[in-house]
Amino acid sequence: MKVGLIGFGKTGKAVASVILQNTEFSLEWVLRKSTKLESRSVSEFLGTESEDPGHIFSLQNITISELLDQHPVDFIIDFSSDLGLYIYGQEAKERGIKIISAISHYQEKEMVFLKSLSEQTTVFWSPNITLGVNFLMFASKFLKKIAPFVDIAIIEEHFKTKEDVSGTAVKIADYLEINNDDISSIRAGGIVGKHEVIFGFPYQTVRLVHESISREAFGNGAIFIAQNLTDKEPGFYKFEDILLPNFFS
Amino acid sequence: MKVGLIGFGKTGKAVASVILQNTEFSLEWVLRKSTKLESRSVSEFLGTESEDPGHIFSLQNITISELLDQHPVDFIIDFSSDLGLYIYGQEAKERGIKIISAISHYQEKEMVFLKSLSEQTTVFWSPNITLGVNFLMFASKFLKKIAPFVDIAIIEEHFKTKEDVSGTAVKIADYLEINNDDISSIRAGGIVGKHEVIFGFPYQTVRLVHESISREAFGNGAIFIAQNLTDKEPGFYKFEDILLPNFFS
Amino acid sequence: MKVGLIGFGKTGKAVASVILQNTEFSLEWVLRKSTKLESRSVSEFLGTESEDPGHIFSLQNITISELLDQHPVDFIIDFSSDLGLYIYGQEAKERGIKIISAISHYQEKEMVFLKSLSEQTTVFWSPNITLGVNFLMFASKFLKKIAPFVDIAIIEEHFKTKEDVSGTAVKIADYLEINNDDISSIRAGGIVGKHEVIFGFPYQTVRLVHESISREAFGNGAIFIAQNLTDKEPGFYKFEDILLPNFFS
Amino acid sequence: MKVGLIGFGKTGKAVASVILQNTEFSLEWVLRKSTKLESRSVSEFLGTESEDPGHIFSLQNITISELLDQHPVDFIIDFSSDLGLYIYGQEAKERGIKIISAISHYQEKEMVFLKSLSEQTTVFWSPNITLGVNFLMFASKFLKKIAPFVDIAIIEEHFKTKEDVSGTAVKIADYLEINNDDISSIRAGGIVGKHEVIFGFPYQTVRLVHESISREAFGNGAIFIAQNLTDKEPGFYKFEDILLPNFFS
Repeated sequence: MKVGLIGFGKTGKAVASVILQNTEFSLEWVLRKSTKLESRSVSEFLGTESEDPGHIFSLQNITISELLDQHPVDFIIDFSSDLGLYIYGQEAKERGIKIISAISHYQEKEMVFLKSLSEQTTVFWSPNITLGVNFLMFASKFLKKIAPFVDIAIIEEHFKTKEDVSGTAVKIADYLEINNDDISSIRAGGIVGKHEVIFGFPYQTVRLVHESISREAFGNGAIFIAQNLTDKEPGFYKFEDILLPNFFS
Repeated sequence: MKVGLIGFGKTGKAVASVILQNTEFSLEWVLRKSTKLESRSVSEFLGTESEDPGHIFSLQNITISELLDQHPVDFIIDFSSDLGLYIYGQEAKERGIKIISAISHYQEKEMVFLKSLSEQTTVFWSPNITLGVNFLMFASKFLKKIAPFVDIAIIEEHFKTKEDVSGTAVKIADYLEINNDDISSIRAGGIVGKHEVIFGFPYQTVRLVHESISREAFGNGAIFIAQNLTDKEPGFYKFEDILLPNFFS
Repeated sequence: MKVGLIGFGKTGKAVASVILQNTEFSLEWVLRKSTKLESRSVSEFLGTESEDPGHIFSLQNITISELLDQHPVDFIIDFSSDLGLYIYGQEAKERGIKIISAISHYQEKEMVFLKSLSEQTTVFWSPNITLGVNFLMFASKFLKKIAPFVDIAIIEEHFKTKEDVSGTAVKIADYLEINNDDISSIRAGGIVGKHEVIFGFPYQTVRLVHESISREAFGNGAIFIAQNLTDKEPGFYKFEDILLPNFFS
Repeated sequence: MKVGLIGFGKTGKAVASVILQNTEFSLEWVLRKSTKLESRSVSEFLGTESEDPGHIFSLQNITISELLDQHPVDFIIDFSSDLGLYIYGQEAKERGIKIISAISHYQEKEMVFLKSLSEQTTVFWSPNITLGVNFLMFASKFLKKIAPFVDIAIIEEHFKTKEDVSGTAVKIADYLEINNDDISSIRAGGIVGKHEVIFGFPYQTVRLVHESISREAFGNGAIFIAQNLTDKEPGFYKFEDILLPNFFS
């Protein structure tokens, strides 16, 4: 399966490195705004060995249409920004290229556009595409369902300089229909990222804990999704839609 | 709903105290081998207030048949021992009384007998009837299903004098089809009971942790099961059979 | 060594049970306000075996002076309330009975009085007399001393109905000279009590975690202190004064 | 203060990057066996900005004597291998250059040699030079001293492919005089490194937990030691010798 990647920031680089190492998927190209690194390859840049072409292109010197003509792909994976989908959306829809968007937050207008693409192609969106966080949410929701009166609290820990409450923690709280006041945020040193959901029963506790080791986790999440989208009809999919059928297969 | 309890050891007492406090269920009686405490009531013995009769009977002075004639119940909950089911099994089957067995381990002969009862009445069995541990197992199995190659390890912690590996940990390992070598046992001080399942991915970890605060957790588990069995047809049920439909309700 | 206990609430009872089980110390009596349980003994009330007398007396029927004449002790351990010290303070001072106060909070007037007693007898005070919490504070302060710029955060977890921030957490924060804003409070189910101090360095974290299993921990703390006070001169001692020399012995 | 670094493997590189960022110390050079990267500078190689010279030299083209003549240093920090000290030991001794060795394990012969150097210069050795692990050991020993009968267990977690029990865990066990059987080893996914010392009391637990985020922690440890060695007389120092006086300063 051939993959094109939109965005080559810190997370984009980590995702690219994971796709390079995966033999099931071939990273055909990376498309970015900047002309930096243009005409180099991802494997050469990262200093890893891979047979994937992984060419780095800049939007300033090639259109998405030219790129897809010269280097066709089955999937476009988007780790750029909330406006990235205007670059490739229309072309992906027309060519039936499957879209995997890992953008944390869309404005309503972009969300409407993304959903409109799903009328003609397979579109997946997750604001946090790691398997671990999505499992955490899914399993937590289930526990709340069987024990609706249990007390729930969330602790999230990140590096000292991270501002605001973790977006992932807010999403977990929304999903579990608990108040944002029930999120405690710890900021200390270089903690990469930890999310803990605590369920307090009268005589027992259950804790679900996710810890990030590095950004490459996003790459594995994207690959997991791609594997599960290969035979999916056009439509709009979220992580839960992928997890549920897995459970009953 | 009327409940009779078989067994009045440490756990039986804790379970009885939880049923007393629950307004949905009435603890009609406790049946035990010993004649100690006979003709006293559970609430008086525990020093709690309750309107449940909760009479304590000894097998040496009453038969199960007489007991059920005088004090009929909808559920028999068994926290005695592996041979306890010979006391009440046949009568429960004939009278259609639902059975909830929380016995940790049955020999094959007893298991065959227990299952034979389920031809005519509703029978539930769980070797660890706490909601938390069963959720842990269920959610862990799901995560293994979506990530079959993940590394799994189990840590169980208990008080210093506990011998052998935790039976619950062994059950979790069986259920997840991992090796008993992947269980680490910590014995220290007065730790009540902690089970942790660690999922190690290349770039992230997920941990599911259950901690027992006290034995009353078994009582809440039994009540949860009773609530979910009220409208169940005769048959043999395990915890998973109760959890799954909850998820889709 | 003979011990008298002031106060017989939940914690007082737990402390009494620990002293009963200890062969080095003999619980001579308990003195309380209420006349409930009067003229019974602690071991009979708790249903444990012990050779300690452990008589329960009420202030309404005996004076401290009569009590000490009839049943002299080496230590008075106070788990009553902030005004409890007026009952026994003067007599303890005059008779040279060592005082161990585990009262969480004193007003200034009472603190002045307590300190005045230390001119003539050995007085110890700790607002949380468990060994674990005091070790946590002591070790945390040391780590802060060798790494003054490290980020520090405190998480405290307690049962749902506990109001206000944990007093122990506030004391840890004071002791480490960090802001109360750096304390996160979790309230869920029946959690007995957990305090965690997180030290975040750029490339590593250190966590010190104390978990209470039950109130009996206070009894062990009181015994530890009594053992360490036996040969101490009159004066005012805090937990740190006991820990430090232990380290260099 | 001028620093020379012996060894430029994975950990050596991380250590070098931390020294580069520190304004108190200047990384003069790195000396390694390989001729790879020779005549490049560390900052250029790592892509970071720094005013430190940080020249990379190969033993194949320069002697330690020439190197020290041309680029004198106050400290030699050794992250190479157990035989690395033969490269620089004699010269460092004669020139009074302080030595910081972070080699995990020395044979007896090398240990004798290292100690002989300390007759004329300041020598420090730590098999794990992170502040966190050393604090863990120090604080744990203290707790054992005040509570000699407490139950102690160690859990260490590392990436799946790590063979053998963690050397650091073995060192902690030695230091606490507990059995290696009390170490539980977890191997799962990409866990960087976690060490937990559990103290189990009858009614409470204390846990000391160290988690590594990345190898740069060794660099911060080396700098902490260098800062504390600046005014130390010739002699042989271990981490404990540095920690103790800090506590009482």
